[in-house]
Amino acid sequence: MSTTLASPMQCVMTVRTLSIDGVQKANSGHPGAPMGLAPVGWQLFSRHLRHSPSQPEWPNRDRFVLSNGHASMLLYSLLHLTGYDLPMEEIKRFRQLHSITPGHPERIETPGVEVTTGPLGQGMSNAVGLALAEEMLAARYNRPGHDIVDHRTWFIAGDGCFMEGISHEAASLAGHLQLGKLIGIYDDNKVSLDAMTAKSYSDDVPMRFEAYGWRVLHIEDPNTDLDEIDRVMDEAQDSDGRPTLIIAPTHIGYGSPHKQDSPKSHGNPLGEDEVELVKEFYGWPIEPTFLVPPEVDLWKAELVERGRQLEREWQDALAAYAQAFPTEAAELERVLSGQLPADWEESLPTYTTDDKAEATRAWGGEVINAFAPSVPEFVQGAADLSGSTKTTIKDGGDVAAGDFSGRNIYFGVREHGMGAIANGMTAHGGLRVACSTFFQFYDYMKNTVRLAALMQLGTIFVYTHDSIGLGEDGPTHQQVENLAALRAVPNCVTFRPADGNEVAGAWRVALERTEGPTALVLSRQSMPNVGGSADVSRGAYVVADGNDAVLLATGSEVQVALGARDLLAGNGIGARVVSMPSFELFRAQDQAYRDSVLPPDISRRVSVEAASSFGWHEWVGDRGAIVGLDRFGESAPAADVMTDLGITPERVAEAARGLAA
Amino acid sequence: MSTTLASPMQCVMTVRTLSIDGVQKANSGHPGAPMGLAPVGWQLFSRHLRHSPSQPEWPNRDRFVLSNGHASMLLYSLLHLTGYDLPMEEIKRFRQLHSITPGHPERIETPGVEVTTGPLGQGMSNAVGLALAEEMLAARYNRPGHDIVDHRTWFIAGDGCFMEGISHEAASLAGHLQLGKLIGIYDDNKVSLDAMTAKSYSDDVPMRFEAYGWRVLHIEDPNTDLDEIDRVMDEAQDSDGRPTLIIAPTHIGYGSPHKQDSPKSHGNPLGEDEVELVKEFYGWPIEPTFLVPPEVDLWKAELVERGRQLEREWQDALAAYAQAFPTEAAELERVLSGQLPADWEESLPTYTTDDKAEATRAWGGEVINAFAPSVPEFVQGAADLSGSTKTTIKDGGDVAAGDFSGRNIYFGVREHGMGAIANGMTAHGGLRVACSTFFQFYDYMKNTVRLAALMQLGTIFVYTHDSIGLGEDGPTHQQVENLAALRAVPNCVTFRPADGNEVAGAWRVALERTEGPTALVLSRQSMPNVGGSADVSRGAYVVADGNDAVLLATGSEVQVALGARDLLAGNGIGARVVSMPSFELFRAQDQAYRDSVLPPDISRRVSVEAASSFGWHEWVGDRGAIVGLDRFGESAPAADVMTDLGITPERVAEAARGLAA
Repeated sequence: MSTTLASPMQCVMTVRTLSIDGVQKANSGHPGAPMGLAPVGWQLFSRHLRHSPSQPEWPNRDRFVLSNGHASMLLYSLLHLTGYDLPMEEIKRFRQLHSITPGHPERIETPGVEVTTGPLGQGMSNAVGLALAEEMLAARYNRPGHDIVDHRTWFIAGDGCFMEGISHEAASLAGHLQLGKLIGIYDDNKVSLDAMTAKSYSDDVPMRFEAYGWRVLHIEDPNTDLDEIDRVMDEAQDSDGRPTLIIAPTHIGYGSPHKQDSPKSHGNPLGEDEVELVKEFYGWPIEPTFLVPPEVDLWKAELVERGRQLEREWQDALAAYAQAFPTEAAELERVLSGQLPADWEESLPTYTTDDKAEATRAWGGEVINAFAPSVPEFVQGAADLSGSTKTTIKDGGDVAAGDFSGRNIYFGVREHGMGAIANGMTAHGGLRVACSTFFQFYDYMKNTVRLAALMQLGTIFVYTHDSIGLGEDGPTHQQVENLAALRAVPNCVTFRPADGNEVAGAWRVALERTEGPTALVLSRQSMPNVGGSADVSRGAYVVADGNDAVLLATGSEVQVALGARDLLAGNGIGARVVSMPSFELFRAQDQAYRDSVLPPDISRRVSVEAASSFGWHEWVGDRGAIVGLDRFGESAPAADVMTDLGITPERVAEAARGLAA
Repeated sequence: MSTTLASPMQCVMTVRTLSIDGVQKANSGHPGAPMGLAPVGWQLFSRHLRHSPSQPEWPNRDRFVLSNGHASMLLYSLLHLTGYDLPMEEIKRFRQLHSITPGHPERIETPGVEVTTGPLGQGMSNAVGLALAEEMLAARYNRPGHDIVDHRTWFIAGDGCFMEGISHEAASLAGHLQLGKLIGIYDDNKVSLDAMTAKSYSDDVPMRFEAYGWRVLHIEDPNTDLDEIDRVMDEAQDSDGRPTLIIAPTHIGYGSPHKQDSPKSHGNPLGEDEVELVKEFYGWPIEPTFLVPPEVDLWKAELVERGRQLEREWQDALAAYAQAFPTEAAELERVLSGQLPADWEESLPTYTTDDKAEATRAWGGEVINAFAPSVPEFVQGAADLSGSTKTTIKDGGDVAAGDFSGRNIYFGVREHGMGAIANGMTAHGGLRVACSTFFQFYDYMKNTVRLAALMQLGTIFVYTHDSIGLGEDGPTHQQVENLAALRAVPNCVTFRPADGNEVAGAWRVALERTEGPTALVLSRQSMPNVGGSADVSRGAYVVADGNDAVLLATGSEVQVALGARDLLAGNGIGARVVSMPSFELFRAQDQAYRDSVLPPDISRRVSVEAASSFGWHEWVGDRGAIVGLDRFGESAPAADVMTDLGITPERVAEAARGLAA
């Protein structure tokens, strides 16, 4: 048995051939990028990344993100060869049902995968969030001589990531905030899926990133010169205060006589014949496939032990820190565990019908500022709309380059980047993160909500100015379709609360929910407090009783339903008003509860929501009616728009009268 | 009566004060940017822009886009003062119900508004599309000595636009394609809605745009030096082959003693007191408001006549062109009119059940290539996925810098930019434009579909790889929620066709539909030809008869429903299979047709779609069942995923058996 570690280049070749074999066996996947990136990947994972393969959850590990997630076999090969719990049988089950080696890397599924990547540009933007969270936690918990939070964030991204707009948003903010511990590696292989990148892309990438305030380093030959890779990676870790981008002109499909430097090696297996030729070029045996030479295998133990040592040193440092700063250490431990403070919910305000009318966004601001002192891990940011979304934590301080102690983040007009950065921060651990903008701009950041749901991250998305009720800004800003869109996203809980109590209740659910995102959809315009329930965890409840008809509504339209109820009372029709802030939570209740809210024997049901009718048939049933908006809005004062487009008590009452009892 | 034209600076002051008064009267809006941009705006509209205010549809006009659409009062003031049909009473009804001066500029509503803007970054990306369409039409129709298509595209954008990711995508592609007739003006006022931009933004904008291949010019003082504005605008029109960005460091809220250079003048009226102070500073009478001095008013006739003269010259040139090139001239006239060629639909293929199984994306490619020779105005592009979406026009040639004669556009990995550029091209006139990517990336470009719907543009969006049926790429790429999302967008027709005939029929509707966008949602995986109807214009129809139960399906799941029908036949249950490629079109049919497809007396209804169940209650009713996917997918071969997640004939049949007859 061999007792000498394989040379790094032999390990690189193993990464390359495992990746090739994995794709070939699956007969599906992207072999070219792993072949090109193997040297960079191996040097990073074996020498530079401070990680602990046997303890992938070690809080102070360096984070690594493969933003070009289609190159997943690179990551799986690296995780396998460096000692993570990703056994060979899973490598062989790449892209097969219930394997932990899915087509694109998925958080939750696979140890060592920090975030789910694949939709291009998301990963590098998550990485900005990981780096920002590190800075913020360091600012909160580190003390002189105790750098208890101190790690880097690395990512690899390809030309696809860099063409995406989100890369602009995230990189621009990272440069602005001078995230000096963020290091990106640009897989500059000049090939995209369709063609050579020259067909559609001629950015001067170094100049572009310098314009963002990044430092740019170059590896001349990242394909064969491992020493140069090391030298540049060392230099990258010697921060000058700016984030660093390393340009790595790799050869996609390195060593493939017919497919190197060609789109042919991008998105399809090489084919058996070409695999043979590549392995010949590598000086690698054609059989067996999935070969890991014993001396390469020895690296696992080596790197596991190296990682354990890093972690032990950190645990010792943590113990010293806990002795010197017990309060801080206890809080750090708590926030990293994801547990909210005991009794935090007692800080939530309650409202009565005597309280003055407000917009739900304004109640949102009150609620945030009520619980924020009790929940120090809560931070928030807005996309240049904090004055409108009202999410600012008063006296929370602002995050800025060089001072990350604040709780309010100015994301700039960068909704997509904001969502992805918030996801990265949430994935880091130690912070609960909310981000806010107008509901209209869900359009710009939707994929980040989806990815939070898929990754099971408790990111909180606050969307204000939720309907035609915003008034004068007009149809470009008046959402009608996004409630339906949000309600269709799996594992996302959407709230559209109707008053202060419901807002408080929605925030309670949002903070307690860590297994997926919560979206809070809030109004611009004011509405009276209906004295609603603060327990919105069941999704819907009866606001006003009645047994002849049911009027269902959400948000600002609960008022409209209450108005209709009064009108119907004049006709001798007793209408119950049901507030339904969350479809998802109501659907999850047992039949008995659902029937108690929506009695099966009352088929005379009318819903009212200043939004698309799409999806409401589920609740009003075959004999019900929907008062909604299947058109775009209008620019005018809110009351005029509501009246003109028929979101009125009169129209709801008329619809109810028109239904059979 | 005055007979001397007002000085340009007096006109600038009129633009400023009209904008201030408009916002103040509405008590809503954004006064600061119009105050800062008035000099640039007036010099552009009165001296440089080649437009014809009395004939805003003149095809060869220069296009102008106000990308920072919240500065709408600037545009309305300019349109009013330069002689467009935008009378003073509409200026006074800014942001009021049914005015033509909505909060943000809206195409259709207002003469002279090329595209609807407001969602930041969209307008400048539309402008890239307008410029690209000009180049493509010029390449098609111009002949030596006959530059019959020859105009510039101008836009103004603010820091908000430039922070948005879409600005990166559009500007990068514009630089790559060397759109030398595109001129942007950057309103570099260093203030955004929340704060000074320095709080979140420190890009070196000139360096960034140079990295994209743009030429960057500077106006040192765009606030008072009209000559310098002219000089730089003249230089900008002397193209060096690159698109041009003019940096204009304006003062937001120019002249406001308390609000200049401050977010306070961004999104709120100045207030009566401050308005007085500003007008004092301008040397302008405080009363009357909405003052247009007679000598300023004289400019209307002057500019209307100047525009008519430009148009007359062009009409003369067109007549000469028509004489020299009658065929080209006739085609140009036709494509500009938006009329399809006679009998084009005869080119559409038909299929029978004998034809081989295909993916609907593959049928899509066949259909495109069948009609493309008959419809020369049809062009398409993909976001680096043309090999996968199959939308390439064979022998159509590729669009490239310096050669715009091709019909295939390589948009790069830039979905959001692609959608906005396609909208701009469609808005230009003369082209029918389709753009394609994976359905998953609707997430990245959703707002462009919405804006096409709002603008009533017939942009065609092709989305392939539409479900878990794509297999190995896994949940990051497997859409479940976007069908519901698309179906909720007003004025958008969504198709999910089930076979070749339905694909052909969907393309027919898409090309004939010019009043809003059409989305074609297509499969990666193959399916047999069901011998479906090529007339999908009624949205749903009966594929196989039966009167005991109805099985509703779309796309690839029509096969699943047909399989379930066979199983149910074994139980003596005669199930009808309804293919429902478009909810919207079916909903628009009369009751008789809808009842003929979905007989009211058959309540035993099961829908099957490999997507969220959200929205299906409308069709299956209270006593029906939905076989859908209210969770994310899995990475594995398609058949494995379908089976594992229960999108199978067996499950559909079981659901039908479970329902009361």
